[in-house]
Amino acid sequence: MANVHDGYVIEPGDVATPIGFKAYSTAAAIRYHDQPDMALLWSVKPAVFSGKFTTNAAKAAPVVVTQAVAHAGISQAAVINSGNANAMTGSLGMAHARDMQALVAEGMSIPPAFVAVASTGVIGLPMPMDAVRQGIQAMMGQWHKVGEGDGQGAARAIMTTDTVPKTLSTKVLLSTGTAHIGMMVKGSGMIHPQMATMLAFFTTDAGVAKSDLDQILGRVVDRSFHRVSIDGDPSTNDMVLVWANGMSGAGIETPDDLACFEAAWTALAQEGARMIARDGEGATRLLTVRVVRAASEEDAALKARTAVRSALVKSAVYGRDPNWGRVVAAVGTVGIPFDPANIGLTMNGIALLADGQPMPFDEAAASKAMNTDEVLFVVDVGQGHQQAEAWGCDLTERYVEINAHYRT
Amino acid sequence: MANVHDGYVIEPGDVATPIGFKAYSTAAAIRYHDQPDMALLWSVKPAVFSGKFTTNAAKAAPVVVTQAVAHAGISQAAVINSGNANAMTGSLGMAHARDMQALVAEGMSIPPAFVAVASTGVIGLPMPMDAVRQGIQAMMGQWHKVGEGDGQGAARAIMTTDTVPKTLSTKVLLSTGTAHIGMMVKGSGMIHPQMATMLAFFTTDAGVAKSDLDQILGRVVDRSFHRVSIDGDPSTNDMVLVWANGMSGAGIETPDDLACFEAAWTALAQEGARMIARDGEGATRLLTVRVVRAASEEDAALKARTAVRSALVKSAVYGRDPNWGRVVAAVGTVGIPFDPANIGLTMNGIALLADGQPMPFDEAAASKAMNTDEVLFVVDVGQGHQQAEAWGCDLTERYVEINAHYRT
Repeated sequence: MANVHDGYVIEPGDVATPIGFKAYSTAAAIRYHDQPDMALLWSVKPAVFSGKFTTNAAKAAPVVVTQAVAHAGISQAAVINSGNANAMTGSLGMAHARDMQALVAEGMSIPPAFVAVASTGVIGLPMPMDAVRQGIQAMMGQWHKVGEGDGQGAARAIMTTDTVPKTLSTKVLLSTGTAHIGMMVKGSGMIHPQMATMLAFFTTDAGVAKSDLDQILGRVVDRSFHRVSIDGDPSTNDMVLVWANGMSGAGIETPDDLACFEAAWTALAQEGARMIARDGEGATRLLTVRVVRAASEEDAALKARTAVRSALVKSAVYGRDPNWGRVVAAVGTVGIPFDPANIGLTMNGIALLADGQPMPFDEAAASKAMNTDEVLFVVDVGQGHQQAEAWGCDLTERYVEINAHYRT
Repeated sequence: MANVHDGYVIEPGDVATPIGFKAYSTAAAIRYHDQPDMALLWSVKPAVFSGKFTTNAAKAAPVVVTQAVAHAGISQAAVINSGNANAMTGSLGMAHARDMQALVAEGMSIPPAFVAVASTGVIGLPMPMDAVRQGIQAMMGQWHKVGEGDGQGAARAIMTTDTVPKTLSTKVLLSTGTAHIGMMVKGSGMIHPQMATMLAFFTTDAGVAKSDLDQILGRVVDRSFHRVSIDGDPSTNDMVLVWANGMSGAGIETPDDLACFEAAWTALAQEGARMIARDGEGATRLLTVRVVRAASEEDAALKARTAVRSALVKSAVYGRDPNWGRVVAAVGTVGIPFDPANIGLTMNGIALLADGQPMPFDEAAASKAMNTDEVLFVVDVGQGHQQAEAWGCDLTERYVEINAHYRT
């Protein structure tokens, strides 16, 4: 599992890997029985806190509550549930989100304003607060035995149509010592760029000032989760949250520290983004589009995102059809117009198009080359020196089945 | 089939319905055998000509050729083929498109600059020019017997994954007499707003000045084909073309004439847009989203288009799941943000959400109400007095099958 990414070792671990963080989970029967559906994240000390939130106008109640926590900038805990999004639930939903915050605060004897709330699941149904209350109580029982806790269990509890829990961690050497960053994410359907795109939780024992944490988080999200697209629908509930409790003793003291910390975090978040794309609803393979020789990183990212989002490209990847025309057509729809005579394209290393001219290739061999876990298209737009990748997955009959018949 | 639409009678007919237009077709074996794949459209007199074209940077060769014809503003014929898009074919493709133009011009003894060219089909393969040449020759044989011609046959010849030919016509009473408008369109996959979205051909025997025709066409397309989305991918080849030959003797003389002509044409084009949406690849039903009480028509259209484009909404419509949360979530992602507390929503007349509060409803009855040819969501955003509709279709396993395994 350890994976060297841009020079950083991304390794097993989770939100409980950094010093001073614990995670708990329980099965509260919010929607389904006999599966964990609530998680609690806790920092021994109040931590510097930042978040990025969905830009959807129909923000869920927990988004509104947690935005206020991020604005204040200090948090010590998060309560998270799957099964019910507490979205489009009106004023009752707001009251429920605040109740969840208050119950955790009361149990831990910390201010309610220190507690983040995140929910994912069905839209438009009231939260079953009796179940939620019992779930919080059960996790408080675990929390009182401080030694316990289970970051992997928490990652399982936040899953909806995800097929695997998604956690990783990394280390970063700062001028004053080594700090850790832990991650747990959930994705699957309703993942789209332009939004804080899913639930993602980062913990770090580095000491980071609030203003630095806000700025770095923005750039990290732009380069990772904003470059994932499963089906183009941004959710009412997406958030990416980060806690920095400083308990490693190592902090961001110099510009080099900041650059190293940002690079390590970006590498970790990009692996998280890829895990989410790979586990898209019904997906059989990861689809990566890298746009190179673009005029700007933003333009490259926009073009790459549009291509991984295209239903026609996604269907072709599923069918192992080396239909590069669909990739070029998708890239051509957005951003800085290119000259078709300059375009080049490779698919898993096979040159399909050069200087705007189709290259002769063996269709059967190209189709066989797509029978891999990851299909990578590299599109050369011949306009500059910047590049960017975006990640998605293939579109399968199973996606339709899941979304036609499962009430998310 | 006759259908009163905004006061205009939309009736059977095609591009050969207006006075002085003829259409021909043939099976040229461009890609498939034993099915018509070339069409020729001809006006007895040179006609005022206008077009709207894909904004895709990777414009196909015929788009480039026909844009020049539209710029000059006079045309007397169009040659159209399915089976091969002549897109991403480099300089050879440009030569082929110009050859098609020249062959028709030579056969009819008219200037090449009077001949529009349109292609649809596979991207990235050279046009089989021997087949094309024979096809043009065969249609010239029909053209020499002027009395013949078949608008329905032409509509069949331009189909790719369309399951039915799509033609209609209407009449409009102008101050100087009655004029006709005829239409043939093809759609299916790769249909998306923001583009001239497919192949659409309009003929009229009204007399219309070039500047009026350009302006009206822009508005008609904005209110019809730009409001259709099948899968979000704009094609390299989309165009909407119109010929006005004045042969009815009725022309646009007064502002009232212009308003009547535009209203009739808009109604006809909207029926064309709905026909295309209904026949989306793999579709089982038409999906209409009407956004009402919006601040502007543009904002309503943007929100409606985003909702009909949503893979999650489309899947839910397929599964007859009255999952209104997905519609609100999609509408919330774009344009002027709304207050979730003001939102209302009905589905085929059943109130599901009012003033931001979910309404109690019978799930089984609501699901049954979706078992219709058309599912209509009306979303009230409570911000103003404007409205707009957009059209799409459901997302089915069959869509994935078609696009995974059929090389469009």
